[in-house]
Amino acid sequence: MEWFVEEHDGTAFMVRYDKKLYEGGKMQRIEIYSTSMGKMLVLDGKIQFTEADEFIYHEMLVHVPMLLHPNPRKVLIIGGGDGGGVREALKHSPDEITMVEIDRMVVEKCREYIGIDAGALDDDRVNVIYEDGMKFVEETEERYDVLIIDGTDPNMISQPLETARFFERCHEISDVFSSQTQSPFFQKDYFRAIVKNSSHISRKFYISYMPSYPSGMWSFMLSSRIGYEADIERRIEERGIKTRHYNASIHHASFALPEWMKEMLNEG
Amino acid sequence: MEWFVEEHDGTAFMVRYDKKLYEGGKMQRIEIYSTSMGKMLVLDGKIQFTEADEFIYHEMLVHVPMLLHPNPRKVLIIGGGDGGGVREALKHSPDEITMVEIDRMVVEKCREYIGIDAGALDDDRVNVIYEDGMKFVEETEERYDVLIIDGTDPNMISQPLETARFFERCHEISDVFSSQTQSPFFQKDYFRAIVKNSSHISRKFYISYMPSYPSGMWSFMLSSRIGYEADIERRIEERGIKTRHYNASIHHASFALPEWMKEMLNEG
Repeated sequence: MEWFVEEHDGTAFMVRYDKKLYEGGKMQRIEIYSTSMGKMLVLDGKIQFTEADEFIYHEMLVHVPMLLHPNPRKVLIIGGGDGGGVREALKHSPDEITMVEIDRMVVEKCREYIGIDAGALDDDRVNVIYEDGMKFVEETEERYDVLIIDGTDPNMISQPLETARFFERCHEISDVFSSQTQSPFFQKDYFRAIVKNSSHISRKFYISYMPSYPSGMWSFMLSSRIGYEADIERRIEERGIKTRHYNASIHHASFALPEWMKEMLNEG
Repeated sequence: MEWFVEEHDGTAFMVRYDKKLYEGGKMQRIEIYSTSMGKMLVLDGKIQFTEADEFIYHEMLVHVPMLLHPNPRKVLIIGGGDGGGVREALKHSPDEITMVEIDRMVVEKCREYIGIDAGALDDDRVNVIYEDGMKFVEETEERYDVLIIDGTDPNMISQPLETARFFERCHEISDVFSSQTQSPFFQKDYFRAIVKNSSHISRKFYISYMPSYPSGMWSFMLSSRIGYEADIERRIEERGIKTRHYNASIHHASFALPEWMKEMLNEG
């Protein structure tokens, strides 16, 4: 047994593993481990998911925007090559899901060694495009009911103009979009940059527990053209959505932000 | 720079430290470090708090029961030798706070090297008793408006009868009591034992983020003889409570439990 270590701001999270199942990649360094938290995907040294808690992240990223929308027929997912986001989005029976993943090898190796997509990527309604997500969002002439940004890092700090433009385009081409926005506790500069670079569009932030991510506290952005209120409980029931973490109470609770986060939002 | 490591269930949290300020103790092994998360207290190898996030834990443990009570004049704190709980409870201007800490050296060394009590333990309204908390609760003939159980571990798994009796007594001698109940994500057996051993009294569970604790997700029990609803926002304003994490929205949101936790509660 050995330890995988991921450092952040003078702290680190370690996971014990019995085997490294894969290491390789062209665009990114892909590592896949068999760990005490199940199988684990690491990209460029950062844990992307473990089987023990990926359901929390994917449910919070996907069901919050999907349930805010009254009828999500057409869905775009940027990133998310592991297929966990597609798996959750399919629960809403959309007509089509387009997934734009920059790194084909992430998709291939996740399917070969892990398979958290649970067959979702083979679904007839799912179209996978291998392309840069920012480029796709910039150029597309399509509009989407729901857009989900899963894991691409538009380099919030060094390229604020590009980031602001990206969020603007996401807002333009969708009714509702969500994006993961890192740890507000350990990655404060990053989070502040996201707040600043998104301040020109309508958006709210929400948070979730996420044990294998730095600080165990993860933030998300939700941007909507159709308001932020809905009868979530009724929609969960109508659509027959089954989850392991997310529910209507968690949906509403995730928008309650602590004082120190509200201060960061007010600075932006 | 070296690393302090705390392991849990095949994972570990590490904090970088530049200096070990103290090591000693008679009842427990006390270590105090100067770390990347500020000063840090460790008892028997487990992180008790870091200056960077102790406010989250202490605010969630103390203000939830204190604000549920309409007029908390008389407060009992079991454990909490660092004084962080007393510091938060004093914000409610009670007439008296009794703190029962089993280990005098924890109080002395925390004050000497850290001081998160911010002078609270010198307050005229605060009475510190060095005694076993379970024994105190068993024998006292006093009643308290609010009782806060901060950190003593009544050994939920190996001594269920003793634990059940302890919770029963806490319920008997207080209007409202709260207790920290560990990580529901990594310490599932422990949490299930708490659920079982408290099932004979009225109680609810609530959760909070806590970056330096295992999984970053921490649970608490709240037991009340006066119901579980109150106008928290009004009371915060009336009492002039200033916090860095806790607020009325967080209070209510902390009772929203994920599906996997609700399943554990239903088993109990």
